[in-house]
Amino acid sequence: MKASKYFLRTFKNVSDDEKIISAILLKRGAYIRESAAGRFYFLPLGQRVQQKIMAIIKEEMDSADAQEMLAPVLHPLELWKETNRTNTAGFELMKIKDRRGAEFALGGTAEEMFVDLVRQYDVSYRDLPFHLYQFSPKFRDEMRARGGLLRVREFLMKDGYSFDKDEESFKAEYEKMKKVYTNIFKKMGLETAIVEADNGYIGGEYCHEFIVNSEIGESKYFTSEDGSYSAHEDVAKFKKDTKNEDDEQKSLTEVEAVRGTTMQDGVDFHKLPLWQQIKDVMFVDEKNRFILAIIRGDFDVNEMKLKHLTSAATLRAATDEEIREVLQSEPGFISPVGIKEKIDSKAELIIVADDSLRTISNAYGGSNKKNLDLLNINIGRDYQPDIEGDIALAEAGFESAIGTGKLVEKRGIEVGNIFQLGYHYSSKMKGATYTDADGKEKPFYMGCYGIGIGRTMATLVEVYNNQKGIQWPKSVAPFAVEIISLNKNEEAEKLYQSLRAERGNLIDEVLYDDRETSAGEKFADADLVGAPIRIIVSEKSLVAGGVEIIDGPKVEVVEMEKVADLIK
Amino acid sequence: MKASKYFLRTFKNVSDDEKIISAILLKRGAYIRESAAGRFYFLPLGQRVQQKIMAIIKEEMDSADAQEMLAPVLHPLELWKETNRTNTAGFELMKIKDRRGAEFALGGTAEEMFVDLVRQYDVSYRDLPFHLYQFSPKFRDEMRARGGLLRVREFLMKDGYSFDKDEESFKAEYEKMKKVYTNIFKKMGLETAIVEADNGYIGGEYCHEFIVNSEIGESKYFTSEDGSYSAHEDVAKFKKDTKNEDDEQKSLTEVEAVRGTTMQDGVDFHKLPLWQQIKDVMFVDEKNRFILAIIRGDFDVNEMKLKHLTSAATLRAATDEEIREVLQSEPGFISPVGIKEKIDSKAELIIVADDSLRTISNAYGGSNKKNLDLLNINIGRDYQPDIEGDIALAEAGFESAIGTGKLVEKRGIEVGNIFQLGYHYSSKMKGATYTDADGKEKPFYMGCYGIGIGRTMATLVEVYNNQKGIQWPKSVAPFAVEIISLNKNEEAEKLYQSLRAERGNLIDEVLYDDRETSAGEKFADADLVGAPIRIIVSEKSLVAGGVEIIDGPKVEVVEMEKVADLIK
Repeated sequence: MKASKYFLRTFKNVSDDEKIISAILLKRGAYIRESAAGRFYFLPLGQRVQQKIMAIIKEEMDSADAQEMLAPVLHPLELWKETNRTNTAGFELMKIKDRRGAEFALGGTAEEMFVDLVRQYDVSYRDLPFHLYQFSPKFRDEMRARGGLLRVREFLMKDGYSFDKDEESFKAEYEKMKKVYTNIFKKMGLETAIVEADNGYIGGEYCHEFIVNSEIGESKYFTSEDGSYSAHEDVAKFKKDTKNEDDEQKSLTEVEAVRGTTMQDGVDFHKLPLWQQIKDVMFVDEKNRFILAIIRGDFDVNEMKLKHLTSAATLRAATDEEIREVLQSEPGFISPVGIKEKIDSKAELIIVADDSLRTISNAYGGSNKKNLDLLNINIGRDYQPDIEGDIALAEAGFESAIGTGKLVEKRGIEVGNIFQLGYHYSSKMKGATYTDADGKEKPFYMGCYGIGIGRTMATLVEVYNNQKGIQWPKSVAPFAVEIISLNKNEEAEKLYQSLRAERGNLIDEVLYDDRETSAGEKFADADLVGAPIRIIVSEKSLVAGGVEIIDGPKVEVVEMEKVADLIK
Repeated sequence: MKASKYFLRTFKNVSDDEKIISAILLKRGAYIRESAAGRFYFLPLGQRVQQKIMAIIKEEMDSADAQEMLAPVLHPLELWKETNRTNTAGFELMKIKDRRGAEFALGGTAEEMFVDLVRQYDVSYRDLPFHLYQFSPKFRDEMRARGGLLRVREFLMKDGYSFDKDEESFKAEYEKMKKVYTNIFKKMGLETAIVEADNGYIGGEYCHEFIVNSEIGESKYFTSEDGSYSAHEDVAKFKKDTKNEDDEQKSLTEVEAVRGTTMQDGVDFHKLPLWQQIKDVMFVDEKNRFILAIIRGDFDVNEMKLKHLTSAATLRAATDEEIREVLQSEPGFISPVGIKEKIDSKAELIIVADDSLRTISNAYGGSNKKNLDLLNINIGRDYQPDIEGDIALAEAGFESAIGTGKLVEKRGIEVGNIFQLGYHYSSKMKGATYTDADGKEKPFYMGCYGIGIGRTMATLVEVYNNQKGIQWPKSVAPFAVEIISLNKNEEAEKLYQSLRAERGNLIDEVLYDDRETSAGEKFADADLVGAPIRIIVSEKSLVAGGVEIIDGPKVEVVEMEKVADLIK
């Protein structure tokens, strides 16, 4: 391809708002261009990279016996209603009606579509397992788009769905996909951590993200020092150290406490350790239920864990007014002790206790009355939580839940994810069954597996850039070779034609910058194209006996006739 | 790929409503499956064929210096408003709003998107011409879907857009694309006729369809006997033979005519030739304008031509009541003579005369009064049309407009189309200009070029089937080779592995039917898969010394070791 014919415009001036280097370089290099916020054109250069990424994914997926197909972009909305995802996906789901009134979803994933397809067939246990996947546009009505391709509203995604006869068979597939994904990203030059994560509106019991470490990533996660445990902050578990839980329980006492409303105010006033204090956080969910989360004073509440335990879709902090008027309590002095007896009879209150409250004895905290505290509060004796479980937020330095060392905090970009779905969809969607050896109809045991193509591309740039250009790994570079002519178009053209002629599979892989622009502009653009091998044809190189080949740090002058052999 | 692992279910029972053979075979062969009406899943087998079709298109487009990219699926609706296509595309256009209220179109084509992209760049005349294309899902909110993949509501399309500096440069591109398209279809095994057509809501001045002859096609067109002229019935022109136009004009006379309301009634009553009678057809358009189309009695009115001449979006026949009450005329006795003086002052009436009325003299017809006719009506003297032009419907046997013999009627399936757009979009969309050599900003001269992938696939099946199976041409067959084992899985497996091992590019091209089903089912399924080469491994073949290779009509027994060489 000759640059003079290529739709390759470079932008020196990218908006000053842009801070993310991948967004800056991809825009400047004419890989992508924004249409509406969070919706991008992939220009010829960008589309080449997308296709190379997809080819790698396809090769690995096919080798793993997954089969590519393609589902419609518009999903009949009744399928999403069958699984209640019209509610759980919430605002992120875009909907559209046709002229006859039929409603469709523009999906962010396509579980219902694949289940609806498969349930139309008579599937026998002999046909299982199988794994179907597609590359197709996905839609998420994000409130905020950001960072070029990192968080967008429309994107190409590889999404796959596995159908197994039981959990055991599924687990083998799940473990296989961990390896397949690791290989896919490795082939592109990306090292990924496999991190336990939250499943959002996808459903199922567990899932893992594939994360490339990066300071600008949105995914914060923890690994144990030995690397054997990795989990997203939303779900990370840790060992809660024991405190004074064996101390003899003293009797509950109310004391005057003219103090401020922070935890530290409590510590200062009572001269007792932070961990012995009860932390009370009052939330309100989308159904207007009050949720009182209580936890040991030295821990924080993890809202994601709290949502799962309470099946709340959204949480917000209760206002001071609500605390006073509806709950008859007092901000800064909330207590689980006796609060249920005081609240407005129409209000619903759920007390959720972190299990860390079992590691302490004779706790202290508020009394639901201003400037009065309680001492010697004991769970089970003085109050009874509605739900007890793990709602604690992990922090760096805490001990890993499986006892493999301290947690280390990391940050990265999620490029792929895999989900156990189990019976989540097959139980909700009627007829999503196979005939087992015993002749009985049984629901499929499912998993799903996604990779965002554009986000992977941006991540590659985050990892492989030197601020002014992109150093694509060979497997995903838009061109393998770039020839740069410095006023020597006749010789460069000869080289270009010889490379195209001699090397069949290079025909499409050579970019030849034949434009009538300055050497400076050509080099700057070449930095953005990032071809792994660059060949300079110049007066200087010809005098030295040939052309200059730059392959990473290696620079050498090579006779023109020998170039093709050398870059094989 | 082993059939036992392949998501390859065959359906013996396709709905009886289905009459189209391609729909029957593609559904039965598990190539496609309907989701909602007119929206299809492409199963693994179907997706393979789609990908082969796309690969052929890509290769030819790239060779012609077109560049693949990808635009978002959701088009900002304001772009469609800029070109007024929100109105001209009418009901076919689907629209959607995001949570922030931004509106988008789900486009059937993407002219606005490509222009909006290009106008964001500083384009110089030196950068021109260029041609950008994509493969992407398209949406048309058709009232009726039909015939499997022949008329659908959602489909993959290759759509390309060319940007030239002037008409001359564009014409070279347009002629080039005629050749490129012809080659694309030829490589797939399809012979296409290039047929002048109507441009629908795309705009521009002319366009051509690529049509594969087929009785079930929706496109009716005419070619001259020597093949030099081809045009869709919507736009086909013909030579209107001269009649008595040189006769001396006699004076207009009103006569009593107690007759029926058909043209034949007029002929019978006056004993004059049909061609001398004026045919009057009254329409109403979407703006409630009355449009009186008049034409020589032996011709019919072509509504598409009439729409173009009057810029009407839709036409319907006027009711008898409207003709009597608003127009003060009489059904069966309408006449252009004096009608404008009688109509309701609030009504608008446009008289459109076909130029065939210049080929006759002393015509006869109604008088706008019941049972009274006029004789010796002459255009220009007795009435003055508002618009005069060609609104005649071509018929088989008419003389081609360019004098190359009689028109022959044909029918076929439109698999591709190319459009001259000229300045249609660049004049409506602000800033769609390039800087010319003289330093002035000038609008792009444009064209657009489409191929429907699914419809091409269905057309291939229409052409290459024997009712019970598909005989794919090699270039688009889902698999190049199918091995069928008849209870000889051990030997067949060996052959399968040897083919995969020896021939790198065949790895993915061999389907091996290792299923535990009957020979009959295997052969029936093989007919639907339609691999050009089939290899039977059976007791009989082994006794005969090897395996049976079926390549079209040729059948031979070959030693297993020699198979790989033979099918190269």
